[in-house]
Amino acid sequence: MPDTTANFADRLLDAIDAKGSPVCVGIDPRYDRLPEAISAGAGADASVQLAKIAEFCWQVLEAVAPHVPAVKPQSAYFEAYGAGGVETYYQVVRWAHQLGLLVIGDAKRNDIGSTAEAYAAGHLAGADKADSLTVNAYFGIDGLKPFLDVCAAEGKGAFALVRTSNPSAGQVQDFQNADGKKLYEHMADLVAGFGDAAGLVGRRGYSSLGAVVGATWPDEARRLRQQMPRQIFLVPGYGAQGASAADCAASFNDDGTGAIVNASRSVIFAHRQGQYADLPWHKAVEQAAKAFAEDIRNAIREGSR
Amino acid sequence: MPDTTANFADRLLDAIDAKGSPVCVGIDPRYDRLPEAISAGAGADASVQLAKIAEFCWQVLEAVAPHVPAVKPQSAYFEAYGAGGVETYYQVVRWAHQLGLLVIGDAKRNDIGSTAEAYAAGHLAGADKADSLTVNAYFGIDGLKPFLDVCAAEGKGAFALVRTSNPSAGQVQDFQNADGKKLYEHMADLVAGFGDAAGLVGRRGYSSLGAVVGATWPDEARRLRQQMPRQIFLVPGYGAQGASAADCAASFNDDGTGAIVNASRSVIFAHRQGQYADLPWHKAVEQAAKAFAEDIRNAIREGSR
Repeated sequence: MPDTTANFADRLLDAIDAKGSPVCVGIDPRYDRLPEAISAGAGADASVQLAKIAEFCWQVLEAVAPHVPAVKPQSAYFEAYGAGGVETYYQVVRWAHQLGLLVIGDAKRNDIGSTAEAYAAGHLAGADKADSLTVNAYFGIDGLKPFLDVCAAEGKGAFALVRTSNPSAGQVQDFQNADGKKLYEHMADLVAGFGDAAGLVGRRGYSSLGAVVGATWPDEARRLRQQMPRQIFLVPGYGAQGASAADCAASFNDDGTGAIVNASRSVIFAHRQGQYADLPWHKAVEQAAKAFAEDIRNAIREGSR
Repeated sequence: MPDTTANFADRLLDAIDAKGSPVCVGIDPRYDRLPEAISAGAGADASVQLAKIAEFCWQVLEAVAPHVPAVKPQSAYFEAYGAGGVETYYQVVRWAHQLGLLVIGDAKRNDIGSTAEAYAAGHLAGADKADSLTVNAYFGIDGLKPFLDVCAAEGKGAFALVRTSNPSAGQVQDFQNADGKKLYEHMADLVAGFGDAAGLVGRRGYSSLGAVVGATWPDEARRLRQQMPRQIFLVPGYGAQGASAADCAASFNDDGTGAIVNASRSVIFAHRQGQYADLPWHKAVEQAAKAFAEDIRNAIREGSR
C-alpha cells in the first residue's frame, strides 16, 4: 500500500526519481490485441476473456514494475466488460499497489458538484483506490472541487484535461478569444489557479492537480509549461499516437522534472513489433518499457542542453 | 425490451407523446437520503446498503413508469459502490426496460477515439444497455464518433454537454471569441453539425445526437433552441437545482417538442418534502412525478401562447 498521508505530487516525483524514469505505462487491455499465448482458447465467452485480460494485466504489471514508477489503467477497456470488468479494474489497482506502483486511474470523470462527490468516492477516496484520477473540467470549479477535496485530505491527485492528444482536439480546444488566447490556454489558467488551493502544493513546489497535455502538440506544450509552473503534466501521445520522445520533452522543465509521459499500446503490445518478436511476450513488454524510459530520459537530457 | 431498430430520437419523441409527459426522472440513489422505510437497519455494510439501493431503485421505477417515458440513472451514484454498484446500475437499466421505460444513461463519458469505442461498447451497444448516454465532447468529433456509430447502427442516442446547469458552468463555457460567441455556442454549432451525420436524423426531424442544456440558464437555452433545431435537449436543473418550469419551457419549440426535462432529487426523495409527508414514500415519488410532469406541461402550454 502506498503512503497516502503524503502529498501526491511529492509521492509521484519521488517515485520518478527512485526509478529514474519519468514515464508511466498505460494499461489498455484491448482483448483483440492480447498475445496469443494469453488469449489462446478463450473463444467468445466474456467471462473467460476477462480472466485472460486479468492474467495479462498482472503479467504486464510484474514486467514493468522494476522500471517505471506508475501505471495508468484505462477504465474504458474494463468497463467494456460491464461490472465484471470494473471488478478487474479495481483488482489491477490493488495489484499495482502490491508491486509498489503508483496508479493514475484514467477515467476522465466529470459532473456537477454533488455527483462529482460520488465519482470521487468511487474512484479516488481510500487507500485501495487509484492514487490519482484524470478528470474533465468542462463544468468549472464546482465539478472539480470534490476531487480536489479528496486530493487534499488523502494525498491523492487529479489530472485535468487541458490539451488532448487526438487529431480533432482543436475543434473545441482551439476556440479563441479576442486576444488570441485559445480555450486550452484558458483552461490552463483555470487549472493553474485551482491547483493552488489549500493542501495541494507539496514540498517540491508542484500541485497535486496536474494537467493532461498531449505530446502530439509540442509547441502548445512548450507554452503551457510556462503557463502552469506548478502542474505536473501527464503526457499521452507517445508511440502509437505518433509523438516522438523529443515532442514529449517539451512538457518538462529544464531541471528534467514536471511531467510524466505515458505509453500504452507501444509497450503492452510490444510482442506485435518486429524487434521484440523473438522474445516471450512479457519479456517484450519489459524491454519495451525499458526502451521507452530510456528514450524519454535521453530526450530530456538533449532538451536541457 | 425496447425496439432498438428504430431511430432513438423517434423512439424518445413517440414515448413522450404516448405518456403525454416530456420529462424524465433521474435515478440518483444517494444512500443517506433514502427513505427510512428502505434504509432501516442497513448499518455501514456496503453490500447491504447496495441491496437497499437496488430495492429503492426498483420501487422508484415502478412508481414513475406509468407517468414518464424515460429515466436517467446517474452512473456516479452506482460507481461509488465499486463493481457491485455497477452491477446494480445495469440491473436498473434492465428493470427500466422491463417496465417499458427508455433509459438515458448519465455517465458523461469522453476520451480519444479508440478508447471511446470501448466506452460505447460498455454503455451503449446492445439491447440490454441504456438507450442513450450523456457524453462530454471536449475531444471534438473523434471522441464522439464511436458513440454516434453505435447510435446509427443500433437506434441508440447520445446527449452532448453544451451548457451545464451548475453555478460555475460559465468559468469554461462562457469563454468567448472576438465576435462575442461563447464556447457553449461554439459547442452547439459543432453538436448541430455532428448530429446531421448519416443515420442519426429520424422521421420526426430530430437527431439521435441531442444536447444537455441546463434549465438554470433560460436565456441561453432560448438562443440555443434556435441554434440547434435538430437537437433534442436534455434539460437538468429543475427542482433541487433551482430552475422553474417556466425556465425549462425555454428549451422547447413552439409545438411543444424538442426537449425532455429531468428532475432527480425533487422526485425520488419526495418523501422529504412537507406536502408528501403523510404518504408512503413510493406514493410520494409517484405523486411528485405526476406533479412534475404536470408542471412542465403547463409551462410549455403557457410558453406557446
